[in-house]
Amino acid sequence: MNHPERLLYPLVFADVALLSVGDDRLQVLLARRAREPAAGKWALPGGILKPALDGSLKDTALRILRDKVHVDIPHIEQVHTFSGPTRDERGWSVSVLFYALLPRDRVNALVSPKVAEVKWADVADPGRLAFDHEALLASAVGALQDKVLRNALPLHLLPERFTLSELQRTCEAVLGRPLDKSAFRRRLRAYQDLVEVPGEFVRGVQRPAQLYRASEGFEF
Amino acid sequence: MNHPERLLYPLVFADVALLSVGDDRLQVLLARRAREPAAGKWALPGGILKPALDGSLKDTALRILRDKVHVDIPHIEQVHTFSGPTRDERGWSVSVLFYALLPRDRVNALVSPKVAEVKWADVADPGRLAFDHEALLASAVGALQDKVLRNALPLHLLPERFTLSELQRTCEAVLGRPLDKSAFRRRLRAYQDLVEVPGEFVRGVQRPAQLYRASEGFEF
Repeated sequence: MNHPERLLYPLVFADVALLSVGDDRLQVLLARRAREPAAGKWALPGGILKPALDGSLKDTALRILRDKVHVDIPHIEQVHTFSGPTRDERGWSVSVLFYALLPRDRVNALVSPKVAEVKWADVADPGRLAFDHEALLASAVGALQDKVLRNALPLHLLPERFTLSELQRTCEAVLGRPLDKSAFRRRLRAYQDLVEVPGEFVRGVQRPAQLYRASEGFEF
Repeated sequence: MNHPERLLYPLVFADVALLSVGDDRLQVLLARRAREPAAGKWALPGGILKPALDGSLKDTALRILRDKVHVDIPHIEQVHTFSGPTRDERGWSVSVLFYALLPRDRVNALVSPKVAEVKWADVADPGRLAFDHEALLASAVGALQDKVLRNALPLHLLPERFTLSELQRTCEAVLGRPLDKSAFRRRLRAYQDLVEVPGEFVRGVQRPAQLYRASEGFEF
């Protein structure tokens, strides 16, 4: 891979932090690398831009999710671009990082890896990752936490219909700390993204819990 | 420029929205392009990554500011990465956008263009720009406004010492609307980034105005 044009043209990648909530903890999908460099190490799913195939680096990221981990989702968000001469031994490289949120109930069916072993790891304890992917993961988690702290609701992490208790547990998983229930409920009143599902309840321990869904056209 | 390797390797650029306040309006530095593509058109200062020179795309952006518009500043911030096959006629391209904030009193001395005509334009009315730079500019201004709405202070836009009235006018220029003075002053009490300069006052119309400065190590 050490062609002379490496001096002129950097490698351009898209990497994706695919985040979900499992066991009430925020988790990230990791793929074990099958080939050098960093063969055998765990990394965020990622791959090289293919100009003949991709209309944008977002397309690159979506193609990689489909091809490498069989995840087909419409909504991903750009986080930050990492770059430099030493972060990948193949040469000067640029990685555009995206994150994607996925409800865990869609994950078991979707994840059927084609080329590599995959696993879910707690974002708080992902282990050693290839390249600078620990920094990439921290950046993606920080961006998500920042949005939730600014009162955005991470509805893409939830199943299609959910209770307010499930929503609160998901926000707590993202932030890594408990939230006050009454303050959380007050905050929710202002949200137009949150829609009651008429006549749909889940029987709770004390009383039936109303079910909610994201509004049409909701974007996180 | 239409080499076969264009199919494999995209062009990678850094572009910079250099923002300042002039005439109480938020303005952006534009450079008229001397060469094709888009010769004669106004654009954000930008240029191609040089892997042999640059340690990161931030380095690319800082080098371009120094070389193209003679601006040497330490603090720039990454906004977003734009990409696609048609945004630059030379081929599939990636542009990493940064913004930089500069007090206007440092600008007259600094801007002495080496290769191109430059001008300050109101961000609200920049005219037609080359490539997709109108979208880039809107993205940079949106990111800055978002930070100020979230109560960050754009102290890098101010001279070294400033009054609270000047700070308010600068925030108003960024947001493009007036702010309530007493609410603004209440907000400021919480800021550790804002330091009184002991014994320094500016004689105002009614009474002397205290001068302030950014704290050491302030980062926007």
